[in-house]
Amino acid sequence: MDLVQRAREGDRRALARLITVVENQEPEAVDFLQEMYPHTGKAQVIGITGPPGSGKSTLTDKLVKELSKRGQKIGIIAVDPTSPFTGGAILGDRVRMSDLNLDENVYIRSMGARGSLGGLAETTNDVIKILDACDFDYIFIETVGVGQSEVEIINAADTVLVVMVPGLGDDIQAIKAGILEIGDIFVVNKADREGANKVVLELQMMLDLKGEKSGWETPIFMSDATESKGIIEIVDGILEHFTYLKQSGELWTTRRNKLEKELLAIVSKKLYTQMLQRVKQEKKLNEYLDCIMRKETNPYSVVELLIKDLMPR
Amino acid sequence: MDLVQRAREGDRRALARLITVVENQEPEAVDFLQEMYPHTGKAQVIGITGPPGSGKSTLTDKLVKELSKRGQKIGIIAVDPTSPFTGGAILGDRVRMSDLNLDENVYIRSMGARGSLGGLAETTNDVIKILDACDFDYIFIETVGVGQSEVEIINAADTVLVVMVPGLGDDIQAIKAGILEIGDIFVVNKADREGANKVVLELQMMLDLKGEKSGWETPIFMSDATESKGIIEIVDGILEHFTYLKQSGELWTTRRNKLEKELLAIVSKKLYTQMLQRVKQEKKLNEYLDCIMRKETNPYSVVELLIKDLMPR
Repeated sequence: MDLVQRAREGDRRALARLITVVENQEPEAVDFLQEMYPHTGKAQVIGITGPPGSGKSTLTDKLVKELSKRGQKIGIIAVDPTSPFTGGAILGDRVRMSDLNLDENVYIRSMGARGSLGGLAETTNDVIKILDACDFDYIFIETVGVGQSEVEIINAADTVLVVMVPGLGDDIQAIKAGILEIGDIFVVNKADREGANKVVLELQMMLDLKGEKSGWETPIFMSDATESKGIIEIVDGILEHFTYLKQSGELWTTRRNKLEKELLAIVSKKLYTQMLQRVKQEKKLNEYLDCIMRKETNPYSVVELLIKDLMPR
Repeated sequence: MDLVQRAREGDRRALARLITVVENQEPEAVDFLQEMYPHTGKAQVIGITGPPGSGKSTLTDKLVKELSKRGQKIGIIAVDPTSPFTGGAILGDRVRMSDLNLDENVYIRSMGARGSLGGLAETTNDVIKILDACDFDYIFIETVGVGQSEVEIINAADTVLVVMVPGLGDDIQAIKAGILEIGDIFVVNKADREGANKVVLELQMMLDLKGEKSGWETPIFMSDATESKGIIEIVDGILEHFTYLKQSGELWTTRRNKLEKELLAIVSKKLYTQMLQRVKQEKKLNEYLDCIMRKETNPYSVVELLIKDLMPR
């Protein structure tokens, strides 16, 4: 029996191996992904993001525990796109510690940035498909930071949950732009802290100002994840959002849009690789480079020449 | 007289406008860059990077002040690639405060991440070319953080100066990989703090372990930038590195390699745009997308079909 079948029948070691094959872009990766593709599309993908220290991991754990209690199968992808430079790689390579590791309904996978950031978003997408094909009902993507790359990764989610926390002060004004765009559900965590109500109010005001772009009324929940407070409401909110997405037809539309982007990104990457091979075969490139270095021509004119060469009308 | 000429003759308002035109990719941008290209290639580009709180800005200020005292013209590009999400945009958009603003030999420009990260690295490159063509002798690129994107930006530098600081503890082991690769000069700043000697020793050990890949022996300087201590030695080190690069021929080789990458990146971006236009004209794309959504085919097979279509052998 092949790896895909074994993974789909619940063999966790096969699943782990499958993900590694895809992560490392081993030659069989595409075949495996192709084999799994027909079985994808059922899971709800939930992205969890928010500033560092907002308690994302604890909150994710509690949400997952609640879903597991309801008999669901859940996958968690913990992504850390921080570069080795900041020491983030340690976090990324660290196995995410949690008592969920003992839960049979739950599978946890940590992913760090090995290659480029774009690559990480792409791999995350593939890992989602693997878990989806292996009949996980809910897939959580949890990112460590809140940078540009995290936004790209979180983009794979059907439902984006943004975790806020009191004590960010006036910074909330600063982050509103990015945050309002991507959040489907807001959670003000550590709600026992002073200022929680103010954060809720500010968020509510900003959401009101923005206006609803769809039929979904973005909810704001309060929670205290370490004390397991507010968890059930948030889980219900997550399920409700998926129901909304399906009933409104938005799920189909947005998934189709994402598919289009994904497809074009892959095509572009492949085209680039092929172009690179062709250009490098041509001796012209070296001549061009030398001419530019000697300032006899400039990069902008050479680009035009190369394009004409490579893409005849 | 056109903008380029005015900027090259020292008109700071023309220079600022020129940079804005390029930053915003206004239609004239390429013409301007083409016009300036023959005048580029003389300046030494110095990248300053290091963990937050290491005193990069203060150090840069002092180095620039020393160079200005020596009668040189210096440009500073302060780049903050952090996304709006983290509040970093405030820093990026903030005008970099410094008494250097009053120095006639110095021009300071702040740049934030407006579009994609790749875009920011590309724009930084263009701004370097503008300053270079306007006869700035030294161009400093100072990045706020130390992530993957900063590494891409700093890649434009001839000389990379990595600023370390005592008190990072064992983290130094963690960041060695990225740091050792890119640093031409190391500075242990805030050297009055406890542990400075230890940081120097650790760095030295790591550099010894790595071995020299070229004829340049990577120096490690100690400084206390707020007290202006160690500045002259570092400036001399920076100049020495440029002399080394020129005499060894490394400057030509690495600039040629960077040019090649830059060129191929631009070509690839343009090809992608053209491909996008072509693919979108074809009605096929929509049919493909629907088939994939209905699981009648999969993205991987469609990619093959599209590639065959777009890039006939």
